[in-house]
Amino acid sequence: MLYSNYLDISIDCVVFGFDDNENSLKVLLIEQERISDTIDPQKALPGDLVLKEEDFDIAANRVLQELTGLTGLFLKQFYAFGNPQRLKHEKDQNWLQKYRINPEIRIITLGYYSIIRMEDYKLIPSSFASKAEWVDIDEIPNLAFDHNEILEMALENLRIDTINNNISFELLPKKFTLAQLQNLHEIIFDKELDKRNFRKFIKKMDELIPLNEKQKGVYHKPAQLYSYERNSK
Amino acid sequence: MLYSNYLDISIDCVVFGFDDNENSLKVLLIEQERISDTIDPQKALPGDLVLKEEDFDIAANRVLQELTGLTGLFLKQFYAFGNPQRLKHEKDQNWLQKYRINPEIRIITLGYYSIIRMEDYKLIPSSFASKAEWVDIDEIPNLAFDHNEILEMALENLRIDTINNNISFELLPKKFTLAQLQNLHEIIFDKELDKRNFRKFIKKMDELIPLNEKQKGVYHKPAQLYSYERNSK
Repeated sequence: MLYSNYLDISIDCVVFGFDDNENSLKVLLIEQERISDTIDPQKALPGDLVLKEEDFDIAANRVLQELTGLTGLFLKQFYAFGNPQRLKHEKDQNWLQKYRINPEIRIITLGYYSIIRMEDYKLIPSSFASKAEWVDIDEIPNLAFDHNEILEMALENLRIDTINNNISFELLPKKFTLAQLQNLHEIIFDKELDKRNFRKFIKKMDELIPLNEKQKGVYHKPAQLYSYERNSK
Repeated sequence: MLYSNYLDISIDCVVFGFDDNENSLKVLLIEQERISDTIDPQKALPGDLVLKEEDFDIAANRVLQELTGLTGLFLKQFYAFGNPQRLKHEKDQNWLQKYRINPEIRIITLGYYSIIRMEDYKLIPSSFASKAEWVDIDEIPNLAFDHNEILEMALENLRIDTINNNISFELLPKKFTLAQLQNLHEIIFDKELDKRNFRKFIKKMDELIPLNEKQKGVYHKPAQLYSYERNSK
């Protein structure tokens, strides 16, 4: 059995952005450089190969910064994708021929994900990314390689972490109403939630602290404000 | 940048076994074959290289079966370990020289884990494993490579899945008492739990169904029996 000379490893980053103004969830995509007059460039998740002696977490941050300019995110490794067919689609062959020394090699990829408030970050595309842009989660096109599948699994992880680790609270202001919280969950889960059930679910949480304070400057009846205090399980 | 000929990928399996009789949590370890008169063989997690065109989940099941005889487990991928120094310890050099074509190569490994009722399975060591055995979680020795670290992270995942996905219920009989459930959680979390807090936590679960039935054949006051019905979140 000979194993060498057949394998490479890359990182692909799924960065979810919450857009306060539009009240929507977006995903950070790059557009690959145009390499042919006849074929339109594909959109893809920001991703690239891991260097020879590089740690994965460091690679994830480097790759994301090189392609999109984003730095300082907490990127979480969520899955290793290794289907031997994942780079064999015809649509990807041109790009692989141009950008990889050995385009036939098996490449496994580690999915990393993060979620941020879009407005806090600025995109600066470079390397083989001709563009970096936020695309609404409902308007994701066919992506390069197996990136639609990677995105799908990242979204599953985001939902699991929303339920189990309350990561949604990091996207809210310090003081918020239960309506804002429900709205955010409806965006993440992409469905309307029953108000009564949602409140029953939410109020079981010890970390949700009702404040002695109500909304100000609203025309409707001001709602109770809450804050969130993370505690260890 | 040249990337080829420097990388390989392996799988390491962390199988937790719950021992009904001893009321303890164990981990499946193999002992490497003796390759020197002067150096004692090391214990390790069952693990081996992924084949050239092999899917990861298939590889995980193959590797576990080849080394320990276990089949039919649900193995869950939980993390990719890629520290470039992870195979550079002197203690591992003899084994790598003997069993790897290129012992200097960087090998990244995917951790998979599973939890089973020990009594349902029989161990049959083969390949480079001279033994396969259950070792109490409190008595794990220094293992080969970075396997103590991999085991530690698997245990973290087991605990998270116990809280979030109720996987502990798969280790209990169909009908159980709250004392049995608490006992199992104390074993998994390795600490005594306050009975009142535990019951408060547990009784929030919709999936826990109180039965119209009590324990039989016990000398103490018979306790209420419960069953567990998994529902989708």
